Amino acid sequence: MKAVVLASGGLDSTVTAALAKREGHELYFLTVAYGQRHEIEVERARQIARALDVSKHIVLEMDLRAIGGSALTSDQPVPKDRTESTRERSIPSTYVPARNTLFLALALGYAETIDASLVYLGANVVDYSGYPDCRPEFLTAFEEVARLGTRAGVEGKGIAIRAPLLSLSKADIIQLGASLDVPFHLTHSCYDPLVSGLACGRCDSCLIRREGFRAAGISDPTEYAEGHTS
Amino acid sequence: MKAVVLASGGLDSTVTAALAKREGHELYFLTVAYGQRHEIEVERARQIARALDVSKHIVLEMDLRAIGGSALTSDQPVPKDRTESTRERSIPSTYVPARNTLFLALALGYAETIDASLVYLGANVVDYSGYPDCRPEFLTAFEEVARLGTRAGVEGKGIAIRAPLLSLSKADIIQLGASLDVPFHLTHSCYDPLVSGLACGRCDSCLIRREGFRAAGISDPTEYAEGHTS
Repeated sequence: MKAVVLASGGLDSTVTAALAKREGHELYFLTVAYGQRHEIEVERARQIARALDVSKHIVLEMDLRAIGGSALTSDQPVPKDRTESTRERSIPSTYVPARNTLFLALALGYAETIDASLVYLGANVVDYSGYPDCRPEFLTAFEEVARLGTRAGVEGKGIAIRAPLLSLSKADIIQLGASLDVPFHLTHSCYDPLVSGLACGRCDSCLIRREGFRAAGISDPTEYAEGHTS
Repeated sequence: MKAVVLASGGLDSTVTAALAKREGHELYFLTVAYGQRHEIEVERARQIARALDVSKHIVLEMDLRAIGGSALTSDQPVPKDRTESTRERSIPSTYVPARNTLFLALALGYAETIDASLVYLGANVVDYSGYPDCRPEFLTAFEEVARLGTRAGVEGKGIAIRAPLLSLSKADIIQLGASLDVPFHLTHSCYDPLVSGLACGRCDSCLIRREGFRAAGISDPTEYAEGHTS
């Protein structure tokens, strides 16, 4: 079956894609280049698409900096060195307003166009850093939008949204990825990489990744600018 | 109150904006330049923004031609000379996959960023040419997405979606617009304009517009390439 995968170049979307592939689906990658600080993600997504031998990979340019509102697309500083309790107190500044709604809308349009009936998303509720649009109730609401707002939903077989990592811990995701031979070395997690592409090691995303590899007992091939290597 | 208006440069979104302005809201226009054939719309949206004295107008570039799937963004021919019964039999090829979901997602992100609690959309169910994402049940489902998938919905006052023209006929919309002094001459409806910008007069959108002005008993300032002027 044809499946659109929202591929960010990150760990979660890559494990999600590998899972969709193992389930026997034909993969169609959609990556949104939205003016994020960590544009290296887009290049990594291309490499991952090749590694997973996808049928097609579309990179959509859309400059969300025109809208702003997030530390990932503006000059606001990316928070560093936060602990789990600081992280969970509120929705962080790295939240990009309505990003998953937007990405899912794009994936939905792409799925309709190629007649795919599945959209895969790497959303995760456990390590989601407080993003409202990574919660199961949000995804259920979006499926209703997909059912009512598309030709496929009205006339056809519909388009299901799958977020298979939703309730997994980062360590579980990494263990799953290892069992699927995910090319971890190609995945990028850092919100605030150095010009060289080196991961900062201190943003929420780096901290969650490092802790995840540690807890999974698997070695993280990422080179970090700061802190002890995991 | 701050209100984001999805401004396409067309008739419906302009009447919607004029209505939001009369209700006393501060207008923030969002126009998506999505590689549509009728890019003249974007220029018209700019002129309308000036005429309505909006607080800000963002034009977001996003090339949906990478995704394709619609006569409005690809080389498929735009249907011409269809009657009401031919039009309503199926979802037309000018349907852009998941377009309103996408536009609403962008408006939602923009509304969150500027702390607006309203998003206005010119969707219309009467003359909607069979687009699934112009139906009231779709909009209700999207409001749920807005409630669950945004910071404003989770922590704040929420963001309401308003589509005040939803159940009006085109003639009603035009009469409403006339009462609000809408600059009809700036609005563009044609799906397939000539290089000169002249409206074709024969696509669904031109036919619905012309019939609307006729039924409203108001003169349409549009110059058409073909057919008798209304």
